[in-house]
Amino acid sequence: MDCQLAVIGGGPAGYTAAELAGKNGMKVVLFEKNSLGGVCLNEGCIPTKTLLYAAKVYDTTRNALKYGVLADPKGVDLPKIISRKSKVVRKLVLGIKARLAAQQVTVVTGEARIVDKNTVSCNGETWHCGAMILAMGSETVIPPLAGLDGVAYWTHREALDCRQLPQSLTIVGGGVIGMEFASFFNSMGVQVTVVEMMDEILRGIDRELAGMLRTEYARKGVRFLLNTQVTGVRQDISGNVAVSYRNEEGGGEILSEKLLLSVGRRPVMRGAGIENLGLELTERGRVKVDAHLETSVPGVYVCGDLNGVSLLAHTAVREAEVAVRHLMGESDEMSYRAVPGVVYTNPEIASVGKDEETLNAEGTDYQVIRLPMAFSGRFVAENEGLNGVCKALVGNDGRLLGMHILGNPASELIVMAGMMIEDKRTLSDWKRYVFPHPTVGEIFKEL
Amino acid sequence: MDCQLAVIGGGPAGYTAAELAGKNGMKVVLFEKNSLGGVCLNEGCIPTKTLLYAAKVYDTTRNALKYGVLADPKGVDLPKIISRKSKVVRKLVLGIKARLAAQQVTVVTGEARIVDKNTVSCNGETWHCGAMILAMGSETVIPPLAGLDGVAYWTHREALDCRQLPQSLTIVGGGVIGMEFASFFNSMGVQVTVVEMMDEILRGIDRELAGMLRTEYARKGVRFLLNTQVTGVRQDISGNVAVSYRNEEGGGEILSEKLLLSVGRRPVMRGAGIENLGLELTERGRVKVDAHLETSVPGVYVCGDLNGVSLLAHTAVREAEVAVRHLMGESDEMSYRAVPGVVYTNPEIASVGKDEETLNAEGTDYQVIRLPMAFSGRFVAENEGLNGVCKALVGNDGRLLGMHILGNPASELIVMAGMMIEDKRTLSDWKRYVFPHPTVGEIFKEL
Repeated sequence: MDCQLAVIGGGPAGYTAAELAGKNGMKVVLFEKNSLGGVCLNEGCIPTKTLLYAAKVYDTTRNALKYGVLADPKGVDLPKIISRKSKVVRKLVLGIKARLAAQQVTVVTGEARIVDKNTVSCNGETWHCGAMILAMGSETVIPPLAGLDGVAYWTHREALDCRQLPQSLTIVGGGVIGMEFASFFNSMGVQVTVVEMMDEILRGIDRELAGMLRTEYARKGVRFLLNTQVTGVRQDISGNVAVSYRNEEGGGEILSEKLLLSVGRRPVMRGAGIENLGLELTERGRVKVDAHLETSVPGVYVCGDLNGVSLLAHTAVREAEVAVRHLMGESDEMSYRAVPGVVYTNPEIASVGKDEETLNAEGTDYQVIRLPMAFSGRFVAENEGLNGVCKALVGNDGRLLGMHILGNPASELIVMAGMMIEDKRTLSDWKRYVFPHPTVGEIFKEL
Repeated sequence: MDCQLAVIGGGPAGYTAAELAGKNGMKVVLFEKNSLGGVCLNEGCIPTKTLLYAAKVYDTTRNALKYGVLADPKGVDLPKIISRKSKVVRKLVLGIKARLAAQQVTVVTGEARIVDKNTVSCNGETWHCGAMILAMGSETVIPPLAGLDGVAYWTHREALDCRQLPQSLTIVGGGVIGMEFASFFNSMGVQVTVVEMMDEILRGIDRELAGMLRTEYARKGVRFLLNTQVTGVRQDISGNVAVSYRNEEGGGEILSEKLLLSVGRRPVMRGAGIENLGLELTERGRVKVDAHLETSVPGVYVCGDLNGVSLLAHTAVREAEVAVRHLMGESDEMSYRAVPGVVYTNPEIASVGKDEETLNAEGTDYQVIRLPMAFSGRFVAENEGLNGVCKALVGNDGRLLGMHILGNPASELIVMAGMMIEDKRTLSDWKRYVFPHPTVGEIFKEL
């Protein structure tokens, strides 16, 4: 069978590419071995945010009195939270299905195998394609811990389907995924311990904000072990999992009912026959792509986590757009200058552009403008007893280089800063715009 | 005493102007007869949003089960809600005081009287000033209803200090203020009736969205009488207030425990001696100002509600910036092209740019792009059983002309659309930016 474009993988990169190419009149086939939406929709961004919202609702009921509201929190119905999460996912998967169908994209459910740059086989059928977008995404890294084979551990997947709360949970890896689960299970009343190898949680996020968030969660009862190396795990006779660790204070063992591993994700380089394409790789072993996401083989593009650049769903979406537009002969080009990063804890952290560490490493001069979130009247009205920070990093020429926010709804505000950074604009450019009052976003005008 | 700039009125226009002029090294005196922050901070935007947030918390506890959270809502502690509101206001007033002090602005508490364009008297003292910014704001319009003298009615001011919930409340005027109070008291369990003279609530807001919001509040139990003229009011022997009305179905009487009048606001043209300046007026009796907010008398500026252009706090802030920058000899100019309007109901409505009615009246061709909010995964995750709409109005040249959103957090998102409209950009310009996933704001990329 023939098509103009074969898309391998139905996550954010894949479905965005397929829909856009279909919209532009291309004959597109998309191969997905599991469920449309990929990790992001089925076991990543969307399900975690659904759980985290339930946690936020629970937090709200427990803090209601601060706002003069009398509620008697009686716990949670975890199976209901989990089944609602599944319902949300199903609804959104159906939405993607409908959108692809509307653009006449052929969706093939099965494990695709790349034969060569113009041939894909799947379910015993062979497809000929003019071009190819590879979007097979990433997989969970399971660290080679001594004793892991003998232990029943969770990855994000099992954590998302947990139908009975453990008493206690040890999370190995204090990155975004680890912290979002720490936040969820902490809200649910689980005793959470986070073990992190580095000297601070949330690598890649502004150090100051990461530290503030850690302090906030420590106050809420999460235990953090930083600079700590896990040396082994074992199933304890008590039924708990024992995690042994070593740090500069010596070492010890953490006993908890469950263990969640969240040390990172890596591109899925094996299984689909990528090796048959003879793609040029980078020093780190990633597929080399240009600013249009095209590989060393013309007509073959790699978008999303698979290229290993950013491992974020929204990067994948934008990369897919760029690749398809390039394929259509339109001019567009990928920019990573303003890719936001969000930690969906409560409060949220959102960042875009460069952080201080990066600027220092580059030797770029910059100025820090830091405002407490309480500069926003809306924030004060809606966050009793809380504060946060909005921190702008500005270059000598006045241009905004980075923005880092701790405080809700940081996730919804950060793209505005991204727009300014992408367009190389200055903070004073914001003055011309009329921000509605009162909003949290107004704080940008105050910087 | 001498100063370079006299600012009359300490609301958003006044305090913004004074702070900015002070920051630029001018010797500034600001006259405020009541409390710094004006109506907006003391009895408008901020206190209403504080009450509405308490209502939202209460709504959340009552809807918690939809998200799998078990809470037993037990009502509200209204005196606590009201005292928290007062605390929020006090905190923010102190913030403004501190910011003015930091710029060496002299704040005079008292009723200023304008003698001439270079002279203001207050508390028996005379101030000589080089320039003058008038920012005395607006006042509540009390409609001349038959029988009003014999009735104890509320304006927004009394409603904000209500320490005991009435059983029932009739609101005359279904504009933004009326609907925000309808929302609050409806959440609090009060039987609310809204009487509106026009054929739809929320004049100035997109008709479709206003109708959807009305339907939502009707479902929640608010009774609406549209196209209805109030003919008189009287105190009933039952202790209730009786509001007589007339509409095409005839007429009748509404009995309710309290009556709130919210038919509008108008500039405060009397009392401060504006007439001594001999300012040129418009046909509607407003002070005529140019694009720098300067009046026909050089050096005299009118900002905020007083000029009657927009009557919104955020317009006032921007006008004040423009006026001060003009005074400093910098180039800047007021644009009303992208002034957002927000209704802080739950869900919120936010609009910016033109609406269909305006475009039709102008004879401008446009296209409507309408997406259900459920196109955003984040919205689906956080709004069980709810929907909303994001509606873009686009000109023949592709430029964004208007954006109208029903759904939370519309208030925080709308400024992004305002930025596009202000800069005369197209929807496709959004494609270049990376929106974090999942956010509600991502929906802009889908338009």
